[in-house]
Order: sequence, then C-alpha cells, then structure tokens
Amino acid sequence: MIQSNKKKCIVLLSGGLDSATVLKIAQKDFEVVALAFDYGQRHKFELNAAKKIAKKNSIILNEIKIDLAQFGNSALTDDISVPKNQDIGKEIPITYVPVRNTIFLSYTLAFAEVNEIFDIFIGVNALDYSGYPDCRPEFITAFEKMANEGTKFAQGENKIQIHTPLIDLTKAQIITKGIHLGVDYSMTHSCYDPSESGLSCGQCDACILRKAGFEAANITDPTSYQ
Amino acid sequence: MIQSNKKKCIVLLSGGLDSATVLKIAQKDFEVVALAFDYGQRHKFELNAAKKIAKKNSIILNEIKIDLAQFGNSALTDDISVPKNQDIGKEIPITYVPVRNTIFLSYTLAFAEVNEIFDIFIGVNALDYSGYPDCRPEFITAFEKMANEGTKFAQGENKIQIHTPLIDLTKAQIITKGIHLGVDYSMTHSCYDPSESGLSCGQCDACILRKAGFEAANITDPTSYQ
Repeated sequence: MIQSNKKKCIVLLSGGLDSATVLKIAQKDFEVVALAFDYGQRHKFELNAAKKIAKKNSIILNEIKIDLAQFGNSALTDDISVPKNQDIGKEIPITYVPVRNTIFLSYTLAFAEVNEIFDIFIGVNALDYSGYPDCRPEFITAFEKMANEGTKFAQGENKIQIHTPLIDLTKAQIITKGIHLGVDYSMTHSCYDPSESGLSCGQCDACILRKAGFEAANITDPTSYQ
Repeated sequence: MIQSNKKKCIVLLSGGLDSATVLKIAQKDFEVVALAFDYGQRHKFELNAAKKIAKKNSIILNEIKIDLAQFGNSALTDDISVPKNQDIGKEIPITYVPVRNTIFLSYTLAFAEVNEIFDIFIGVNALDYSGYPDCRPEFITAFEKMANEGTKFAQGENKIQIHTPLIDLTKAQIITKGIHLGVDYSMTHSCYDPSESGLSCGQCDACILRKAGFEAANITDPTSYQ
C-alpha cells in the first residue's frame, strides 16, 4: 500500500459501474478508503466485484456486514421476483430497499467519525436511475446537514462533506468519464438478478440502464449477458 | 395484546428512565410498538429493563441486533473505563458512542417504512444530559427532514414525525411527569457501569443525572446503588 500525503476520504464501493467511477474521481484528490456493505443482498456478485476493484486500485476495502433482509419488502433482499423490462422512472420499484442509503451513510459516518475522515463519496445519480428517493440531491443535502449536527467530530471547524460527483450526469456521461479515467468496467457488476455463474440478466432496471448507457456513449459494454 | 383503534407509533425503548417516560406519554395518543437495540453495549441490564417495561405495559418489543462495538472509541462499547464523578456538560465525554442515535433512528426508519408507521418517539433530552450532539433538537429536526426526503413511504401526503416530548424538560420534570403517568421507575436502568449483580455505580454521568433528578423532584429514587 503506497503512503500518500493526500487527505483521506471514504468511497462507498458497491462493485457497480457508478461507484467504480466515483472511486477514480476521488483518487485524483484524495487517498481513498473504501467501504462495502454486505447487507443481505441476493446478488453477492457485486461484493466480489468491489473486492476486485479495490485490489486493482490498491486501496483498502472495509466490508461492513449488516442485515437489511430483516426488514424485507424488497426484491433485492427477499424472495420477490426482480421485475424485468419495466418502464423505468414511472414509479419507485420493488427493488427499492427501505432506507438503504440512510443506513449505509449512517454506518459510513460512524466509520468516518472514528477515523476522523470528513469527506465521503457516494455514487448516487438522479438522472438515469430507478427513482429511489434516497438517490436524489435533496436527500444527500439533508443527510449532510444531519451528519454535521449529530456528530462529535463535526462540532469544530471541519465539516462533513458528502460528495456526489455523478448526481447530475447521464449514464453515458458517467461511462465516458470513467473510460477517460481508466476505469475497467469489465470488473464492475450491475445486474440485480444474475445467473448462478454470474451472467447478467440484461432485463432488470440495472442492466437496462447500463446497456443503454454504453450504447449512448458509443462504447462497447464488456458485460456478459445471458 | 389488546387491539386498539389508535394510530400506531414507534417508541425507542432503551430501558432507561427517559424512554420509559416517553412510552407512557406516547400511549396516551398512540398504539405503541417498541424497538430496543442490542448494539454491543457493555451494560446489558438496560435491555432486560426494556423487556420488563414492555411486558408491564402490554406492548410488543422488537429487539434489533447491530454491532456498534466494531467502531470502538466509546466507554459504552469498549474496554475503556467509564468516567466517574466528572463535570457534566463541560465537554462531550468518552461515553459518547459515535453516530449511535443516527444509526438507531435509521433502523427505526426502515422498520417504520416497512410497517407504514409515521410517528416515532425518542427520549432525547438536551437539558440534563451529557452533551451528546445527537440528543440536541437541531439534530432531530435535521434527521426528520432527511427521513422525509429519503424514504418511499413519505413521498405522499403523510410525513414522518420524530416526537421528542422530553427535549426541553429537566430530569426532575421528566420524573414528575412520569410519576403522574404511572411509570414504575424501579423497572428502569440508567447506570453505564453496573456491578455484575446489576447494582448501579452511583458515580457515572447517568447515575449522577438520575440521582439529582429524583432529589430535585423530591421523589425517592427506587434504584439500588452500590
């Protein structure tokens, strides 16, 4: 691990396309520590992807294990079918995991406070997305304010900043930026419902957004679809 | 369990004096569902107290197990001595658990969303307290806003409300109110550092605030101190 004089930041690394791009953006200005969440998701391939991406980029990945499956009510944690080929953006879909980003960011905040890291990067995106309320800028702004009110380490001069460099980019813009920064998208995993061998379904919201993004960016998608 | 026509609410029940009082306040207008957190705290007596209080008040208690000890840095979860007879309110003490109320409230929010409960009661108090930043009204207001921005169920007409009926009461006022409502304070546990048999130390912040509160209220403290 190369020591750096850069300020530290935390990147929430899911193993998907967005967070892999955020990682490269953050690395330009910060020394990155990554967090991945094993939250009871059915698609564990993304966690393996996060590990590979961290290794490739020579950063430490901390895996936090929490249980969101106890709350149920989501196709990502429960035995509920992942919807295929649905209209994206018409309503909040069943793949929404209740309060997921709030809980992820809360744990991140605890990690941040204990390690005195004030900069947190998250790859939320409110343009080519599934309409989850906890991906919108209004939510991030409100979380940041709450974080600065509710922690001991932010009571001084330094304030917590939640960076969302992708928030107003299209998927195509994210991919173009990532390619420019050297992201290896063959390592990333987007599918909500992969086969047992890890092939992406090509029909869930995540696959559809990914495929459309590569097409619009005029870049070949390295993903193996079923 | 008696069925009720009242609207449901969630009470965060720690087993302490404050949350036991909040429970009685909430029961006047709501059907209460309680949540207790086993977060890796060293003083497990409070969880047993929460169970007894829930049983006595005929309410369902849901215990959520999470691991805040993984973050360390607190005398409540780590092998760090609980300070005794210190000046309360001079600075945020080592018993502060990083981001505890944010994480508690985030899980509560997930439970609330899945069960479609919009009212959450928490016994935070910013007068006779240890100075934890996540007990102050500014934090609660910020959390409420974030909760309404970040959840699917709050996107309609109903909004999440975080009730803090004790926020501007002194400990004596809380106790007086609780006695009036029939709280059995012999069931509650406040001490951060009890003996193995469960006797309160009488010298930690929690004991000192409790003892002073009973004295100021001119009510006998039923606690057994070492």
